[in-house]
Amino acid sequence: MFRNMYDTDVTVWSPEGRLLQVEYAMESVKQGSACIALRSDTHSVIGALKRSVSELSSHQQKILEIDDHLGIGIAGLTADARTLAKWMRNECLNHKYVYGTAMPTGRLATDLADRHQRTTQTYVRRPYGVGLLLASFDKNGPHVYQTCPSGNVHECYATAIGARSQSGRTYLEKHHETFPTCARDELIMHALRALVGCISGDGELTSENGSIGVVGKDEKFTLIEGAELQPYLDRLELEGGNNGGDAEDEDEVEAEEKEDDAMET
Amino acid sequence: MFRNMYDTDVTVWSPEGRLLQVEYAMESVKQGSACIALRSDTHSVIGALKRSVSELSSHQQKILEIDDHLGIGIAGLTADARTLAKWMRNECLNHKYVYGTAMPTGRLATDLADRHQRTTQTYVRRPYGVGLLLASFDKNGPHVYQTCPSGNVHECYATAIGARSQSGRTYLEKHHETFPTCARDELIMHALRALVGCISGDGELTSENGSIGVVGKDEKFTLIEGAELQPYLDRLELEGGNNGGDAEDEDEVEAEEKEDDAMET
Amino acid sequence: MFRNMYDTDVTVWSPEGRLLQVEYAMESVKQGSACIALRSDTHSVIGALKRSVSELSSHQQKILEIDDHLGIGIAGLTADARTLAKWMRNECLNHKYVYGTAMPTGRLATDLADRHQRTTQTYVRRPYGVGLLLASFDKNGPHVYQTCPSGNVHECYATAIGARSQSGRTYLEKHHETFPTCARDELIMHALRALVGCISGDGELTSENGSIGVVGKDEKFTLIEGAELQPYLDRLELEGGNNGGDAEDEDEVEAEEKEDDAMET
Amino acid sequence: MFRNMYDTDVTVWSPEGRLLQVEYAMESVKQGSACIALRSDTHSVIGALKRSVSELSSHQQKILEIDDHLGIGIAGLTADARTLAKWMRNECLNHKYVYGTAMPTGRLATDLADRHQRTTQTYVRRPYGVGLLLASFDKNGPHVYQTCPSGNVHECYATAIGARSQSGRTYLEKHHETFPTCARDELIMHALRALVGCISGDGELTSENGSIGVVGKDEKFTLIEGAELQPYLDRLELEGGNNGGDAEDEDEVEAEEKEDDAMET
Amino acid sequence: MFRNMYDTDVTVWSPEGRLLQVEYAMESVKQGSACIALRSDTHSVIGALKRSVSELSSHQQKILEIDDHLGIGIAGLTADARTLAKWMRNECLNHKYVYGTAMPTGRLATDLADRHQRTTQTYVRRPYGVGLLLASFDKNGPHVYQTCPSGNVHECYATAIGARSQSGRTYLEKHHETFPTCARDELIMHALRALVGCISGDGELTSENGSIGVVGKDEKFTLIEGAELQPYLDRLELEGGNNGGDAEDEDEVEAEEKEDDAMET
Amino acid sequence: MFRNMYDTDVTVWSPEGRLLQVEYAMESVKQGSACIALRSDTHSVIGALKRSVSELSSHQQKILEIDDHLGIGIAGLTADARTLAKWMRNECLNHKYVYGTAMPTGRLATDLADRHQRTTQTYVRRPYGVGLLLASFDKNGPHVYQTCPSGNVHECYATAIGARSQSGRTYLEKHHETFPTCARDELIMHALRALVGCISGDGELTSENGSIGVVGKDEKFTLIEGAELQPYLDRLELEGGNNGGDAEDEDEVEAEEKEDDAMET
Amino acid sequence: MFRNMYDTDVTVWSPEGRLLQVEYAMESVKQGSACIALRSDTHSVIGALKRSVSELSSHQQKILEIDDHLGIGIAGLTADARTLAKWMRNECLNHKYVYGTAMPTGRLATDLADRHQRTTQTYVRRPYGVGLLLASFDKNGPHVYQTCPSGNVHECYATAIGARSQSGRTYLEKHHETFPTCARDELIMHALRALVGCISGDGELTSENGSIGVVGKDEKFTLIEGAELQPYLDRLELEGGNNGGDAEDEDEVEAEEKEDDAMET
Repeated sequence: MFRNMYDTDVTVWSPEGRLLQVEYAMESVKQGSACIALRSDTHSVIGALKRSVSELSSHQQKILEIDDHLGIGIAGLTADARTLAKWMRNECLNHKYVYGTAMPTGRLATDLADRHQRTTQTYVRRPYGVGLLLASFDKNGPHVYQTCPSGNVHECYATAIGARSQSGRTYLEKHHETFPTCARDELIMHALRALVGCISGDGELTSENGSIGVVGKDEKFTLIEGAELQPYLDRLELEGGNNGGDAEDEDEVEAEEKEDDAMET
Repeated sequence: MFRNMYDTDVTVWSPEGRLLQVEYAMESVKQGSACIALRSDTHSVIGALKRSVSELSSHQQKILEIDDHLGIGIAGLTADARTLAKWMRNECLNHKYVYGTAMPTGRLATDLADRHQRTTQTYVRRPYGVGLLLASFDKNGPHVYQTCPSGNVHECYATAIGARSQSGRTYLEKHHETFPTCARDELIMHALRALVGCISGDGELTSENGSIGVVGKDEKFTLIEGAELQPYLDRLELEGGNNGGDAEDEDEVEAEEKEDDAMET
Repeated sequence: MFRNMYDTDVTVWSPEGRLLQVEYAMESVKQGSACIALRSDTHSVIGALKRSVSELSSHQQKILEIDDHLGIGIAGLTADARTLAKWMRNECLNHKYVYGTAMPTGRLATDLADRHQRTTQTYVRRPYGVGLLLASFDKNGPHVYQTCPSGNVHECYATAIGARSQSGRTYLEKHHETFPTCARDELIMHALRALVGCISGDGELTSENGSIGVVGKDEKFTLIEGAELQPYLDRLELEGGNNGGDAEDEDEVEAEEKEDDAMET
Repeated sequence: MFRNMYDTDVTVWSPEGRLLQVEYAMESVKQGSACIALRSDTHSVIGALKRSVSELSSHQQKILEIDDHLGIGIAGLTADARTLAKWMRNECLNHKYVYGTAMPTGRLATDLADRHQRTTQTYVRRPYGVGLLLASFDKNGPHVYQTCPSGNVHECYATAIGARSQSGRTYLEKHHETFPTCARDELIMHALRALVGCISGDGELTSENGSIGVVGKDEKFTLIEGAELQPYLDRLELEGGNNGGDAEDEDEVEAEEKEDDAMET
Repeated sequence: MFRNMYDTDVTVWSPEGRLLQVEYAMESVKQGSACIALRSDTHSVIGALKRSVSELSSHQQKILEIDDHLGIGIAGLTADARTLAKWMRNECLNHKYVYGTAMPTGRLATDLADRHQRTTQTYVRRPYGVGLLLASFDKNGPHVYQTCPSGNVHECYATAIGARSQSGRTYLEKHHETFPTCARDELIMHALRALVGCISGDGELTSENGSIGVVGKDEKFTLIEGAELQPYLDRLELEGGNNGGDAEDEDEVEAEEKEDDAMET
Repeated sequence: MFRNMYDTDVTVWSPEGRLLQVEYAMESVKQGSACIALRSDTHSVIGALKRSVSELSSHQQKILEIDDHLGIGIAGLTADARTLAKWMRNECLNHKYVYGTAMPTGRLATDLADRHQRTTQTYVRRPYGVGLLLASFDKNGPHVYQTCPSGNVHECYATAIGARSQSGRTYLEKHHETFPTCARDELIMHALRALVGCISGDGELTSENGSIGVVGKDEKFTLIEGAELQPYLDRLELEGGNNGGDAEDEDEVEAEEKEDDAMET
Repeated sequence: MFRNMYDTDVTVWSPEGRLLQVEYAMESVKQGSACIALRSDTHSVIGALKRSVSELSSHQQKILEIDDHLGIGIAGLTADARTLAKWMRNECLNHKYVYGTAMPTGRLATDLADRHQRTTQTYVRRPYGVGLLLASFDKNGPHVYQTCPSGNVHECYATAIGARSQSGRTYLEKHHETFPTCARDELIMHALRALVGCISGDGELTSENGSIGVVGKDEKFTLIEGAELQPYLDRLELEGGNNGGDAEDEDEVEAEEKEDDAMET
């Protein structure tokens, strides 16, 4: 009850030096379905779980192409993500028009984070309720960036956001040392294995709820979904690896998530 | 009482990462009379229930023509819908004027959803209290889109919104696999059968409260109401199918509606 | 007490998906004195009860001429109505100046309703506290439209708004099938008979509190008041029909009024 | 206590469909000292009671000249009235400059009322706390108009506003049938007799607290105060009529005042 | 407790039709040290009590020259008064530049009051917390005006504002009939005698706390303070009149002050 | 508890006619370390206590040069003071550029006070939390001015602000009659002696916490700190005068401080 | 509970003359990981602790290059710091473009502090939640500045901010007298030793969580991290100095921190 006095306006500090509205917005990211990203020395890959939707509807897009060399994965409010994607596409087009080259990923990631930050310092707009993973291959090679509603941005080797994403992150941490030399398809398999961990206990990764985006040295950003995804899932099945994250990791999850939200450094 | 501290302003996040004002606006869609849409490979059809109105008044329009190739069905605040329809007609005219071709449905649907999204991020306007179904036939064939106050948009094979719409959706889910190859009139019959499920127990679908919009390969968007609707109703009567949704589905409805509101993916 | 948390701002949704401030504004229409409108195939007629005012003052205008072919009847805040009437006159003049023809009634009614709608979506202005009936004869023949503070607009054969208007509406519903073929004076008699029902028990329709506006094929919009109204009242007296609405209808009134306020369709 | 939730902002409707802030502003008119106006076929006359002020100060002006053909009487906040008078003088000057003729009274009265109305629909300004009586003689003959904070405006044969004004209005109602044919001085005597009724029990109308403004066919707007007023008061004394309103009317006052505030018609 | 709901915003009316914030601002005038003004047929004089200040500081100015022909005395917030004085000096300079003559006092007083009024009708500024007395000699002879935070303005023969000013006003009322024919120095003596009444019981009027401003037919506005004031004080001493106001008047004061605040007429 | 209803907004008057937010801002001046200023006929001197700061940091500036002929001493929020100093330097530069002469001190002091006043009448900015002492030597000789958050400004012979400043003021009052004829160094000694009184009981004036600014007939504004200050401190030591203010004065302090805050005159 | 009435708006003073929102923002600086800065006569050095981050992510930047001659260390909200760094880079570029020389550090530090100050005086933006240390070598030699959310700025010989920074400050205070003559590498060793004190009990300074920035007479601003940092850490290990701050200092910390927050001087 006490803390509520400081949590209805994004421009109000709590006595402990926190911006509670920003923290609440970060909650909506945790409720989105999981999204993971990783990279080798030649490719960047995004993997995402699509919420089970009605049979009547086309599947909700979780991975969006921004430019030939860059795609994003999202967790949180879809409508907010779409708005940001639109803006990012424009930025990339403008850059290409003005400089004749592809937008450097780092610059786009920082501009995007500044866009987030501005909503945390003014009362006229709420913070965006969405976290984004950027995967790209530009002249400096492959990149993976992660942004969050607070305006923070990190470059990563691999990362995961959204519901139950800690299990995926645990998988990535265990294996990330092998990533740099992975071939394209092997990297995709790692992405799928990490995704499997983010599915709730009795669920399964299928060609309907799974989604992969890949970009690399000689490959424009490509979505792999449905039938195209099936061969990879078959391989996963052979490994015996397609079942939800086991409960043992849960405690670890709780513990690590705290640190994960930190807006300060 | 606790949650009320975060639900009077659209720019305020609740501690659980929700935008309650947007959720409340979505309630007004659920209170509008039902509206359904579906498509075959050649046609898109909208069906809607008109609220029983005074004998003195012309019937309230539930299905509106936007352009030759596109119409909308609405559930929620009529005045909001009219304002949005006006804007959509303008967009279509501008596109025709600038590019000489019909506005692509997907682009109009996304622009419309962005218009919804903007009202969820600023305190100067409330979210629109209306859900829309777009049915069209453009150069890419027939399309059905659904938007809602949160700014979400889905392309669908078939869908239903408004009061008791879950019964209609259940019908559509059961039969949607046969839709692609349906002829125009058969598709209209499916729409009517789905609508019948959305009528409260002792009501009946008549030429007065029913309304159909159809658009297709060789047919501009056309409204079928009153006398023109009667032949279809007669056929429905012959089938013995014109009575309200049965109560058995109700539980299922409750269960599925939750997931339906999700703003996150 | 609970609902009051959502009813002091027009841009705030209640948890049930309602805009309470708009509903409150609609209350002020119900407190205005009654106003009715109806049409035949050749004429449109408005009838209104003027509040009994001081002998010292000229009578309050309830029916206003907007253009040669169009007049309005009002129920609710007079000052709001005057402001809207001024705007409508301007619209008609502009249309005549630009296109050389009379403003189509449907277009004016929609623009007016949009003007209402805008006040329901912004916090800088309150909703207008007035309902309007438009009666006109334009190139498409006679029209009757009704608008309300929510921004809804209906075309009607006949309608009634304001205090005790349900009794008038009941009369109109009983006889509306005969209206299309009515001659001008017969239509005026119907208007007066409907008005009588809206007078409280012991009141009477007189040349002072009654007011009629008529427009038709060969007749510009004309006000019939005072001495000019007396012949019609004499005829009404002969019929024995000039006494207040009977109490039997009251229950019916309550029941039907609920549905009447609906902003959704 | 309940109603207070809706009465601190002019843009908020109460659940009963009332604008309480506007009603409160009308209270300040009732607390101003009385002001009456009436007209014959040739003249318009304003009469006002000046609050007893310090001997040291010049008398507070209650009747203000706006133009040669038009004056106003005020009840309520003096500072608000002065601001409005300044605006009205400007309007008259502009009209004369542009059209070469005197401002028509009806037009000025409506513009003034619209100015009032605007303050009732926006949160940036409070409603004006003053009621005005306009008395004029223009090309259409003599006119008396009354405006109030709600934005309502009436043309009257005679009227009275301010503290205890109901007694004055009762006098005017009793005699108004004789007004049209009154000569100038007889009309002034009627004004004074009506004013006497507005004085509290033991007060008296004197050349210090009384004030008359007159305008007519061959007479520009003229103030009659002090020594010039004395002859009329002497004549009143001879009639034996200069004593405060009698208590009998009080009940009647209460009853009629309700209806007097109505903002709706 | 009840009234507090309406007294924190200048744009909110109380249910009794009062603007409480304006009344509170008027309180700050009553807490300023007293200031009096009076005029004969040839001169205007302002007298003021300076708050006893530190020996280290120059005396606080209570009487300010605005132009050659006009000075002001103040009671209330010094900083507000200085701001207004600056504006008035500018107005006088502009008038002189444009018309080549001195600013008429009445016009300046009205413009000043309008400036006050505007702060009472908008929420962006608070009402000024200062009352002003204007003393001048222009082409129409000597003038004394009084303004207050509500935007009211009075022309006076003599007046007093500030703490314990009622005693001074009582003196002025007793003797004001002799003022018109007073010579300059006699008028100054009257001012000093009135000021003596405004000093609290055991205080005394000295050349340090007293201040006189005078302007007349052949005299530009002149401040008389310190040594120049002593001869007048000596004369006052001889009369035996230099001691604080006697307690007998206190009740009278209370009674009369009520009426003094009235914003309405 | 009662008064708190009026103390969170600078544009709200309390029922007693006070602006509590302005009074709270003045509290922050009282919490700054002491600052004193005085002048002879030829020089102006500012003395200030620097808060004991970390050994690692350069000393906090308490006395700032504005122009060759003018410096300021500050008590209160440093950041606010720096902002104001920046503005004052600009004003002095502009004046020199436009008129070719040094900015007159009185004019700068008034402009500065107006800048303070503006923040007390609008809700968009808070009052500045700083008091300033201006010491200068311009063409009219030496000047000392004092401003405070309320927008008041005084010219002084000598003055003191900040924590425990009353002791310093008492010293200045005792000796101010000898100041006019003091030589430069003697004036500095007076400043130091006054400062000693403002140090809390067991503290001592040192070359580290003391600071002197001096400007005079033939001397541009000069800061005397550290080693340059030592000779004066040595002389003070010889007098035996360098110990904190004695407790006897405390009561006197309380009593006099009340009067000191007065915003009204 | 009492104080909370004044702590939700940056433009509201508490009765004690404090700006609580600014103080809360300063709390967020204390929660950032520690950052220290110091300088010799030839070099300036920044040292910072990087929060332990996921193995998957590149390390969070705590030290940022602004220009060839200037870098910053940060403690608090990363996103706010990035925004400010972007602005500082722009300022340096503009200065170079306009004047052809490097931006003087003092000027940049003051402009930055003014940028902080502005957010403390307006309600449209919240105070920045970050403290910055500037280390540079410009034409005046090496500089170290510290800014904080209140808008205060200090030039320092050495300083430390962030969590547990008091231990680091204690080390710096003990040894700062030897800093001026230190060689580059010796200065870096001092920075590391001070950092060690800021690590919580059982932590250790490693090439992963440590970060050094150095700039000097003949050296552009350089980051020393990872492998390049290892040699210095090895040397530290040899000294036996790489273990967390000992608990003895904690009390001292508490005591000194109070004074550290002071916004007044």
